[in-house]
Amino acid sequence: MTTVEYPDVTEAHRRIRGHIHRTPVATSSFIDDLVGAEVFFKCENLQKVGAFKARGATNAVLSLSEQEAARGVITHSSGNHGQAVAYACRIRGVSATVVVPEGASTVKVEAIRGYGADIVFAPQPEREQRVSDLVREHGYTVIHPFNDRQVIAGQGTAALELFEDVGDLDVVVTPIGGGGLASGTSVVASALGSTVVCVEPEIVDDAFRSLRDGVLYPATGSRSVGDGLLTGLGPITFEILSSLHTEVVLVSEAEIIEAMKTLMTRLKLVVEPSGATVLAGLLRHSERFKGKRVGAILSGGNVDLAMLGDHLR
Amino acid sequence: MTTVEYPDVTEAHRRIRGHIHRTPVATSSFIDDLVGAEVFFKCENLQKVGAFKARGATNAVLSLSEQEAARGVITHSSGNHGQAVAYACRIRGVSATVVVPEGASTVKVEAIRGYGADIVFAPQPEREQRVSDLVREHGYTVIHPFNDRQVIAGQGTAALELFEDVGDLDVVVTPIGGGGLASGTSVVASALGSTVVCVEPEIVDDAFRSLRDGVLYPATGSRSVGDGLLTGLGPITFEILSSLHTEVVLVSEAEIIEAMKTLMTRLKLVVEPSGATVLAGLLRHSERFKGKRVGAILSGGNVDLAMLGDHLR
Repeated sequence: MTTVEYPDVTEAHRRIRGHIHRTPVATSSFIDDLVGAEVFFKCENLQKVGAFKARGATNAVLSLSEQEAARGVITHSSGNHGQAVAYACRIRGVSATVVVPEGASTVKVEAIRGYGADIVFAPQPEREQRVSDLVREHGYTVIHPFNDRQVIAGQGTAALELFEDVGDLDVVVTPIGGGGLASGTSVVASALGSTVVCVEPEIVDDAFRSLRDGVLYPATGSRSVGDGLLTGLGPITFEILSSLHTEVVLVSEAEIIEAMKTLMTRLKLVVEPSGATVLAGLLRHSERFKGKRVGAILSGGNVDLAMLGDHLR
Repeated sequence: MTTVEYPDVTEAHRRIRGHIHRTPVATSSFIDDLVGAEVFFKCENLQKVGAFKARGATNAVLSLSEQEAARGVITHSSGNHGQAVAYACRIRGVSATVVVPEGASTVKVEAIRGYGADIVFAPQPEREQRVSDLVREHGYTVIHPFNDRQVIAGQGTAALELFEDVGDLDVVVTPIGGGGLASGTSVVASALGSTVVCVEPEIVDDAFRSLRDGVLYPATGSRSVGDGLLTGLGPITFEILSSLHTEVVLVSEAEIIEAMKTLMTRLKLVVEPSGATVLAGLLRHSERFKGKRVGAILSGGNVDLAMLGDHLR
């Protein structure tokens, strides 16, 4: 018994499917040969706002009561989740406030503002406090990026569509950061008789250690090129992933960059480093996937082109 | 009356459709707003061998007589067409010889060899002579990259699918080099009551001048980042494009690179510079497209990552 069940995911899908893309599935015989498996890539880089985060945020916002919706929502992500909450709030006509760190990239801030959200700048260490203050003042509902049942159920809809589109899979591979996508995917895979392997940069291996040791460790505080995966698990995602025995494997920074390049040359897709971890994991740990039917969730495609250029040279 | 007619394209499509991808159509409300039009991108970067060239080569190889097929085929492209011919020959079990210039990139040569073609190296100025010698010796059939009716009919199938998938279009935009894609697309668009605007790098503006003046000018001999578009028109493509009054517009090198970046950030697609010219043309000449339904053929996705990295920094 987990706190998010398979019917929560199917219900989430009914709720959000008119507002998100049913993203395509990509395949490459070249990559299949490299891995020694049949790999089906779910292209969440082609999702609204460029990442699977649109699914969870939309489910959370559409699940609010009328009273909650009238008061508005708040979150404190400057990344994909911030855009996703702004996008979801525009769908329902709910006011959104996104607290971003001072010095956040102008492109990201403008993207969030472009969806009509209010931006509040705060120094990095004061962001959570600022959110609390604004909640107390205005009665906003906080939409947490991963430690939230409706967000997790929404993220699970990517795997749901993948199973619907390609049929049975032996294993589904996802990146892991806070564990929202990993948890939603694990709920779906478990219900359908499959398993999940999560991939984490070894430089930020807290989820790997947490699930190995049964102890919820905090984020390492290190940096990784997979900048969407720096967060530690939350109590809800830790509980779901532990109870479903979801595994984590590790990859190096160089492996992530190489995988990103292979996705560009073979699938012609721009995938952010956090998303490219799935291919890095498939290649490094290919013995686990030999001869299997494998789903792999390319979680997002929002890259900084100057950063990308540095890695390609 | 042109030398390639609409029924040639529909027949080509019946012939090749089991061997090529029906590539998806991508859209972006952000790009629509920039152009002021509704733009449907036909993703030939996701085609077999990474470019529309798979269509024409496959149609040409599948159209050979049994005697021609038994003798084998030859071509002299080290780029997408070389891979496309090798791919098409593998489908039919026809022997393929590809003459490549000494010093051609190892990656491209290995890709051609990977499809089972024989590689013959020749100094750049001697390539055509070497092809002639081999034809005389072995009786090979030459599959020209664009000045070939079956190749042109095959290239037209991309536009055919686009019209089938999205319905009426006011105008279709393609890159123009030798004019194979432009000609096939023009045949289809003309038959369906639409028009074609081709985009050419202004640094290699021979097609622009040829169709403006009614004179078949040779290639300029200049280089462009759109390295698939350096060739001049051939007699067949010149005749088709002239008789159908197909127009050409010009774009700068900087506009091509900027368009390639926008396709990466907005569509999350890797498109080679030659293919990105279509977006560059839409943006530079947006007054021609205002309020219209526009098809745009993203012709290929084979980029050199080191070159790409240089442009992104």
